[in-house]
Amino acid sequence: MSDVAVAGGGLIGLATAWRAAQRGLSVTVVDDSPGTGASAAAAGMLAPVTEAGYREEALLRLGLASVERWPAFAADVERAGGTPVGLRTAGTLVVGFDEDDVRELTALHAYQRELGLDAERLTPREARRREPSLTPRVRGGLLVAGDHSVDGRALHAALLQAAQVAGVRLIRDRVTALRVDGGRAAGLETAGGTIAAGTVVLALGAHSGRLPGVPPLPVRPVKGQILRLAGATDLLEGTVRALVRGRQVYLVPYAGDRLIVGATTEDRGFDPTVTAGGVHDLLHDAIDVVPAISELELVETLARWRPGTPDNAPLLGPGPLPGLVLATGHHRNGVLLTPVTAEVTAELLATGVLPEVAAPFTTDRFGR
Amino acid sequence: MSDVAVAGGGLIGLATAWRAAQRGLSVTVVDDSPGTGASAAAAGMLAPVTEAGYREEALLRLGLASVERWPAFAADVERAGGTPVGLRTAGTLVVGFDEDDVRELTALHAYQRELGLDAERLTPREARRREPSLTPRVRGGLLVAGDHSVDGRALHAALLQAAQVAGVRLIRDRVTALRVDGGRAAGLETAGGTIAAGTVVLALGAHSGRLPGVPPLPVRPVKGQILRLAGATDLLEGTVRALVRGRQVYLVPYAGDRLIVGATTEDRGFDPTVTAGGVHDLLHDAIDVVPAISELELVETLARWRPGTPDNAPLLGPGPLPGLVLATGHHRNGVLLTPVTAEVTAELLATGVLPEVAAPFTTDRFGR
Repeated sequence: MSDVAVAGGGLIGLATAWRAAQRGLSVTVVDDSPGTGASAAAAGMLAPVTEAGYREEALLRLGLASVERWPAFAADVERAGGTPVGLRTAGTLVVGFDEDDVRELTALHAYQRELGLDAERLTPREARRREPSLTPRVRGGLLVAGDHSVDGRALHAALLQAAQVAGVRLIRDRVTALRVDGGRAAGLETAGGTIAAGTVVLALGAHSGRLPGVPPLPVRPVKGQILRLAGATDLLEGTVRALVRGRQVYLVPYAGDRLIVGATTEDRGFDPTVTAGGVHDLLHDAIDVVPAISELELVETLARWRPGTPDNAPLLGPGPLPGLVLATGHHRNGVLLTPVTAEVTAELLATGVLPEVAAPFTTDRFGR
Repeated sequence: MSDVAVAGGGLIGLATAWRAAQRGLSVTVVDDSPGTGASAAAAGMLAPVTEAGYREEALLRLGLASVERWPAFAADVERAGGTPVGLRTAGTLVVGFDEDDVRELTALHAYQRELGLDAERLTPREARRREPSLTPRVRGGLLVAGDHSVDGRALHAALLQAAQVAGVRLIRDRVTALRVDGGRAAGLETAGGTIAAGTVVLALGAHSGRLPGVPPLPVRPVKGQILRLAGATDLLEGTVRALVRGRQVYLVPYAGDRLIVGATTEDRGFDPTVTAGGVHDLLHDAIDVVPAISELELVETLARWRPGTPDNAPLLGPGPLPGLVLATGHHRNGVLLTPVTAEVTAELLATGVLPEVAAPFTTDRFGR
């Protein structure tokens, strides 16, 4: 029997397991194919400021707390895992395409300044000096020096290694149910048998809401389609996010010559389809923003599901059953929130106390 | 030693080998991965009329001769190969999008009538009655009842079976050179050894011009990118070809719910890259013509090379060396021209006489 069983070996589950093992707990992670869910599709943006939504200030604070932890976290994972995670600290440029897009940029900037965030308004010329491959049709920009990115797949590989080195046991099997004993979470049922544990961490991403045995949770799948391109060496200095006639697209360079183009946001349940329309819209907007993208190789198309919640913020801390801890609902911010989620969850597991920074994100905020 | 060695196990090579074996010759086909070249990318249009180019009347006659042979050829391959080849005889609709596109349609129709070809001009309403999923923005149409399609991959699988049943020997090895003996083609060199043969058929598609030992041939690679979509059950009655603001796109339904969207035409040598721009343009034009394509699943993207020649017509008959026979240079018409190519080449191999229909396509038309 383990102290802790973690359902889900994506970024959140692995990082949490690793941190808990570092605190002296015995931890088992169960996942039949770790890292092939939302973690495989993530663009890896660490962008609390450019992602800041109106009336989502608690989430912004959590994001800022996490982005602050990122450099040390990355160094720690790399040391323990033995492989680089591709942290890029070149900042993020947001650009607007038409007059309405620029109006939205201006409003975003005003809101950021009101919150005391660091963001610099750029003229079209300044935006193109920063990113010369931008189309001359760009009408304005906003530079956020503190919004970074990481290579999500490299991060997952390093975390997998780090967790195992720290003694985490990985069982490659499908989680079929939460094991409940006397009204208390007591482990996981898998295709291959039962894994008994004192505490269970639910880190199944978009699937968290449908594990048998878990009481209803406000988590729903939010489909995202994403593209990976190759041949983009020196194309971009850092992440470029664009508002293109009211639609959003982001371009995230990684791993030398690679570029991620993301992402659609679709309410279609667990529809796994990469659609002609989704791929078209991403390519269309990306090529509009950086015309040279037209010449790049299309290497991969992918659809996955973000774990969405009613307020776009995660579900952390004690779950709806004794012995059940939540680490899910990260929606668009899973990679960004990995360090802070792992830290607060490990703290709760080791001491029974949930750190203050996570207090606004317990599931009781939605009532019973 | 075989009577005939065929370099290349694509559609042309296999069909030729099969027909030659039926004539009583012993035939060996050499290809390290048969059917993975242009044959794998072909949309399978049997469309001599809609493909008819100005000043390409000899090619048109050859195409008509081949399309006439198609029903019997398909039945024959299916009988011998044991699997269906997906021949669809619903005809082809050509549509124009803007005024210039329609002007081009009108000119094409006039040219077709001048040549005595069967093509019917449709109003936008008539075009949409035939294909209700067409955008209402279509400005005019042209129905060619005699232009059909076939499932190129199913055809290849059936031909592979038919050829082997007929006694053709297939060697899965890479052809590295033409074997020349006393100034005469005498077989093929492969990675694994020498294959001696009385006559060699060169059917290497776009690679035909660069096999060591073969004198220079006017064959160059013409890159095409193509998409395969799923979920298109009942979307289209038959092939739809569209002129979209001067660009061409075609939509070819096959195998129940599948749809091919093709194709780019690029002079880029043997560049194997599926590009963001190529995929974008195909999706953009296809969705413009049939908006519901947006919802289909993007299953596959592919780039291959057509064997282009200076006059877009194939190279048939005796090659530049004694003992060497050409069956290459089919450019955009490889599937269409498979039956006639196989027939005339087998006739030449069996009797020494090239049938009249192939006479305009010997390589000496380009001079020495």
